[in-house]
Parts: sequence; C-alpha cells; structure tokens
Amino acid sequence: MKKVGVAILGLGVVGGGTYKILTEHREEYQNTHKIDIVVENVLEIRKERALALGIEESKISANIAEICSNPEVDIVIEVMGGVEPAKTFVLAALNAGKSVVTSNKELYCKYSHELEKAAIKNHCGLFYEASCVGGVPVIRALLDNLQGNKILSMTGIVNGTTNYILTKMSKEGASYEDVLKEAQKLGYAEADPTSDVEGFDSTYKLSILSSLAFHTKIPYTKIYREGITGITVEDIEFGKQMGYVIKLLAIGKNGDNGIEVRVHPAFIPAEHPLASVNDSFNAVYLTGDSVDDVMLYGRGAGALPTGSAIVGDVIYCATHTNYRYSTFVNTKDAAKDTKFIENFESAYYIRLEASNRTGVLAKITSIFSKCGINVAQMVQEDVNSENVPVIFVTHKTKEHSVNKAVAEIKAIPEIAKVASVIRVVN
Amino acid sequence: MKKVGVAILGLGVVGGGTYKILTEHREEYQNTHKIDIVVENVLEIRKERALALGIEESKISANIAEICSNPEVDIVIEVMGGVEPAKTFVLAALNAGKSVVTSNKELYCKYSHELEKAAIKNHCGLFYEASCVGGVPVIRALLDNLQGNKILSMTGIVNGTTNYILTKMSKEGASYEDVLKEAQKLGYAEADPTSDVEGFDSTYKLSILSSLAFHTKIPYTKIYREGITGITVEDIEFGKQMGYVIKLLAIGKNGDNGIEVRVHPAFIPAEHPLASVNDSFNAVYLTGDSVDDVMLYGRGAGALPTGSAIVGDVIYCATHTNYRYSTFVNTKDAAKDTKFIENFESAYYIRLEASNRTGVLAKITSIFSKCGINVAQMVQEDVNSENVPVIFVTHKTKEHSVNKAVAEIKAIPEIAKVASVIRVVN
Repeated sequence: MKKVGVAILGLGVVGGGTYKILTEHREEYQNTHKIDIVVENVLEIRKERALALGIEESKISANIAEICSNPEVDIVIEVMGGVEPAKTFVLAALNAGKSVVTSNKELYCKYSHELEKAAIKNHCGLFYEASCVGGVPVIRALLDNLQGNKILSMTGIVNGTTNYILTKMSKEGASYEDVLKEAQKLGYAEADPTSDVEGFDSTYKLSILSSLAFHTKIPYTKIYREGITGITVEDIEFGKQMGYVIKLLAIGKNGDNGIEVRVHPAFIPAEHPLASVNDSFNAVYLTGDSVDDVMLYGRGAGALPTGSAIVGDVIYCATHTNYRYSTFVNTKDAAKDTKFIENFESAYYIRLEASNRTGVLAKITSIFSKCGINVAQMVQEDVNSENVPVIFVTHKTKEHSVNKAVAEIKAIPEIAKVASVIRVVN
Repeated sequence: MKKVGVAILGLGVVGGGTYKILTEHREEYQNTHKIDIVVENVLEIRKERALALGIEESKISANIAEICSNPEVDIVIEVMGGVEPAKTFVLAALNAGKSVVTSNKELYCKYSHELEKAAIKNHCGLFYEASCVGGVPVIRALLDNLQGNKILSMTGIVNGTTNYILTKMSKEGASYEDVLKEAQKLGYAEADPTSDVEGFDSTYKLSILSSLAFHTKIPYTKIYREGITGITVEDIEFGKQMGYVIKLLAIGKNGDNGIEVRVHPAFIPAEHPLASVNDSFNAVYLTGDSVDDVMLYGRGAGALPTGSAIVGDVIYCATHTNYRYSTFVNTKDAAKDTKFIENFESAYYIRLEASNRTGVLAKITSIFSKCGINVAQMVQEDVNSENVPVIFVTHKTKEHSVNKAVAEIKAIPEIAKVASVIRVVN
C-alpha cells in the first residue's frame, strides 16, 4: 500500500475539518484507493487547538522549515488564508518538492502564475478546488469536463456569508445590520466582515473561475465590485412584489466584444434556478456553446464541505503521479489586448422618493427617454406621506446611460432622493 | 503541436454533434490545449449522412478493422448505442491499442469490468462521462471530486425523455399517450420508447453512478424498476393540490443495513431542488458525509450537450498520457455478500375509488393500522358520482407493508379499484 504523508498548515475551521475527514476515513481510503493517508505534521501556533483534535504533540510544529525538511511529508495542505505568510509557506513547500493543496482564494487569485511556475519547476502538484465554492466541484468541471466548450457566461452565488445574510433578510424582513450581527455571533461572518460583504471574496473566486473558463488570466482588479451593505429590507420587499429575489452575483461573460466581469447584488426572477439557492448554499450557473446550461450547487463553505474538496484534491494528487498540475497551464497571462467591457448592459431597478409625483413623472421619463432608456415597469406606492416611493424597472440598457440618468434625476427639485439602484439579471 | 487522431463510430444524433464540436473548435483546442484533434475516420454505413456533415469520402468506413489498423487513429469514440456490435467494436479498438470514449450506458453498465480489463491490458484509456446524464459532469465529480466522502445517497432525474413527458403532462394536463406521440414526432422519444418509459435507461445510468459512488459493482438487475406508463393526469393534478410534483427518480442509498437502488416515479415536494428540473434537463442530487448536499444540473441528452461530455473526455484522454483509466478501478466486483435492501422505506400516495365512503373508511383505516401504516393526509373528493376518489398519503413505511395493505384494500367489496400507488420522496 502506498503511504501518503500530509501536513496541514493552519488548524482553523477548514484545517480542523480536513483533519477530521482524513483521520475518520483513513481505512476507507486504504480499501477504495489503495493509499494510506497519514497526517505527519500540522503547523499551528495554538498548540491546544491541535491537542484538542487528538493530534500527538510530536506532530505539532510552529516552523515551516521543519515540515519542508520532513521526508515523510508528500503533500502540504495550506488552509491558513490570506496572502502572507501563506505565500511564503506554499513556495517553500513547492521548492522542497512537496505538492500543495490549498483553499486560499486570495493567494491563488493574486499569485497563481508565480505558484504554478514553482510547481512546474519542482515537478510538484498544485491543487485549489477548495478555493472556490467549497464542496461544489466547479474547478475540475471547468478543467476536465467542459474544456471542449467555449464558455459563454457564468453566473454564481459564490459567497456563503452574504447569501446567508440576504436569505435571512428576505425571509424574516430583518435589517442588514441585525442579520450581520447575528451571523457574526453564529460564526457565519467574520468580526471584520469587509471581505465578504463588500464583495472582495467573490471577486477573488470570480477571478479564478473566469480565468479558467475564458482561458486568459482575469485579474481581480478588473472586476467591477459592489457589496451588499446598501441593500435594504424595503428593496427586498418591493422586489418580491415584482417577482424578484435578491442575490450577490458574480458574473462573467465572454462575448464577441470582450470580457465582462462583475460582482454586485442583483434581482433575479423568483423562478431562476439560482433564486432558490439559499442560506450558506452556493451555486455556479454556466453556459457553454455545446453543453448549454449547467448548474453546480452545494455548500459554499464550512469545515466539512470545504474539507471534502481538499481531501478530493489530496486523493487525486496521491493517485495521479504523472499528471500533477491541475492548474492554469492553459491560461495565458492577461494579454495587454484583452478587452474588458466596463459599460455593460443590464436591466435596472431604480427606487426614488418623490415629493410630488404628478409633476415629477414627466420630468423623470423625459430624462430616461433622452438617455435612451426604456422603462419596462413602473410602480407607485400610494402612501399617505410627504415622500412617495416610485420604482422603475428598465429594459436592458447600458451602465453609463443609467449613471447619467440617475445623476440628472437627482437634480430634479421634487426628488427627495434616489434611494437605490439595483441591477436586474434575467 | 501534438496531433490526436480520432475515429467516430456511428453518426447518429450524438455522433453528428461530436463531429460538429470537434471540427468547429479545432483551432481553439490548438490554442488552449496545444493539441490538434483530427477526425481521421468515421464508421457509418449511411454514407450520405457522413457526406452531409462534410466528411471526405476517403474517411468514411464501414469496417471496424480498417479503423483499428489505421495508425493515425489514437482515440475511438463509440456513439452507436446498444450492446452489439458496439461491444465487439470497442474491444477491437482497445485490443488494437486505441483509447476509447463512449456514451453507451447499456454497454458500460453491463460490461464495465470486461471493457476495463481490456483497457488495462492494452494500456489504453477508457472514458464514459457521456454515458450518464449528458453534459452534466457527474462521473468525474464522483471519481475526482467527491472521492473523499462516503456517499450516503443519490437521487437523480437521469432520463430526458421521461422528464420531458412528465413535465408536459404536468404543465398542460395532457395525457401520457398524447404527450408520448408528440415527443416521438419531435424526436424526443424513440419509435419504441420502452427503454426510456419503462425505466431501463435509468437503471443503466443508476447502475454506473451508484457503482462509482458506493465502490461496489451494482448490477442493473438488482435495481427495482417501475416506469411512467401508469401515471395519469388525475394523479398529477391531485399531487399538485397537495404540493407535489411527479418525477421519474433514480435513487441509490448506502446505509448501515445495505444498499438500496430503485427507479420509479415519485412525488417530490414542489420546493425540492429537483422539482424545478424540467423538460429535457436532468440533475443528480448527491449527499456525502463530508460535502453534505451537492446538485449537478444540466441537459441530460441532445447532440451538443452529450457531445460536450465526449469531447471533454477526448481532450482529457489526449492530455493525460500517464493516467488514462478513468474507470471502475476502485470498484470491486459485486461481492456475494453485498446486501441489497428490497423492502425499502418510503411514504406512499394511494388513490382509491370507493362506492360508499362512509362505511368503507373504517375498513381501510383498520387495514392500514393492522399493517403498521400511519396515514399523514387524507383527501376525499366531494363528487357527485357513483365512485368517489379517496386519497391517502402515508408516513414513511415499508414497501412490503404497503403491498400487503393494498392487496387487502382491493378485496373490500365497496372499493371499485385501487387506482394508483405512487411513492412520495421528501
């Protein structure tokens, strides 16, 4: 039986889950895959955390050099998160001839080519299925299943925290602030939730997935980004009345005129397959020129689902000795001439508060008309207050046209405010 | 640039789609995968079909020996369907040192071990992603993504024809016979629809998928099978009123007491993710002990979606020279001691027609009670006719208990008939 030694860098939620899966299934992997996976080392300064998991003291290290020089370690699992020291450690492992399995989207998104070069130079494997959408098998689907297609578009719900928050707000009518606080209490959101709620985490994942899908490196800095902090219960409620559900979407399109990549909240029709992806579930909806529509759905985060992706990569790495790079090998560095579309097309939901709707409607619609925007739907709430909500849903139009129209509408004296502008994706 | 020669056996719907994808994307594969895939041969007796696709006459063959002896052919794509002559041809190709990519579920389900042995002996690849659920990447997900899990259960809608028929019946209230005729006219159903509508096709796919998931060969003959020919518009309508949607499900479970495999129509709650898998879309819903729930969704059939899976395998085969068996290598022959559960548990929908419901209800409920069956819901239609429909939905109970109860109910004089017994899967 082939023995495979692994080291785990970081015993946080995912590291602990991975350790649990590997140790509890050890005998099964011996039977089904003829390999004996042994956790040889863990890198963790909180020694008590390692001991609590039942790890022998002799295996606990606070020193990457020790792990790199341990001949019993074949595969290093990096589940620390963040760029440093993870990057230094991963490079050290690769340079020491260890294969690497990582769940680190930020690291992989920002430094994939550097890591890949080190892997190739040292004849090591480099795997990162766990970096995107937890247990959902989307990276290998792009690499090994859908590679015969031109992928035309992908629309994903790729962040568990924000999907949990938006689901709760939609179902319970609770405010963003209240749900965030609750999510933090339950451990679903970080103490500093910026990376999730402002959409950074989603841009890292979209960068990785769209690079694979479109065969050219998509830097995360090229991705339009807008978070969910401005979403209100009012808009969710108005959207619901019009048959929409709100989601934070990661969208990539590869069209004849260029590549379009964006992360922002959007209304989608209640009957869209992504509309019923709730709580911490995630999904990626792909369209290929041959395969048509494919959706991959599952837990986007969590100790065991993400651990499942990591262990899948470990077994793959251990059993595929001569093809160890499941990487960006087919992805060229973003060519200077890759065209990114910034003035993208979308339908829009625009909510205004108007002090005098009779006079003001003509002014608004003439601005829309001047900007070439067609209105698909208008709702006026008949409320007895000074400011009346007026909602427009436009047909597909250009981002820049909407920006221009909104700026002009804001300048109308009878407009108390433009309360919200939310894209509508059909 | 590495040149990869392929031969296509059979230019039916899928063969034609595969040819189209390969030729239209040839330059893309050169750019992205550094391989030049060339269709060197096609095996097709309908020469005009090949010529219509634009294939040079010199490449058309009616003779497998010619293809096997062509040194330019590296990979043979078998898309003929059926056991013979496909089996003879695939074995000939493997024995000639060609790798094989097949979409043939019946062949693979029935002869996987024999084919695999020939592949291993001849150091050839053997790939069959296209055999199950068209363009949905479920086989590689089981082999290369979820292999760290114990797969506890899978529930699939794996046949496009029956899903199309049931969707049409549900949406339009049309009868099974009428929808079948229309489906045949449109080419969605075969002239002899038996394999689809009686569930055979689904058992082949469930055999392949559950063997991979449970790491033991599940012969299709061990799968309980029931088709959709008995499903009526009445039952679909009653089900709808109770919040259910009807689907032909392929179910596999791997529990402590044994393995349970079955194909039958079932009511599922309208809010279940599988309930919105409509028309010719298919999906597989998997639960693993680590990954939790995963759903893979897409087109279950069709020239291009199935062609996408085939071309995915061709590229994989061409670029993974040292790991060419994506096969049952981890699946032992069904051990004699594999325990299959036949008396499985399910909830049931039972529709009766009773001539006199006042007297008869007590008799029915006492039979249920005697058989240990708890009733969850009862609906009596208040109609002005001699026979009144009465519907029971049971709590989870054993298959054998229901069979016994139904036999006894049939013997009650006031029961005109037991119109239908349909399982309910929650």
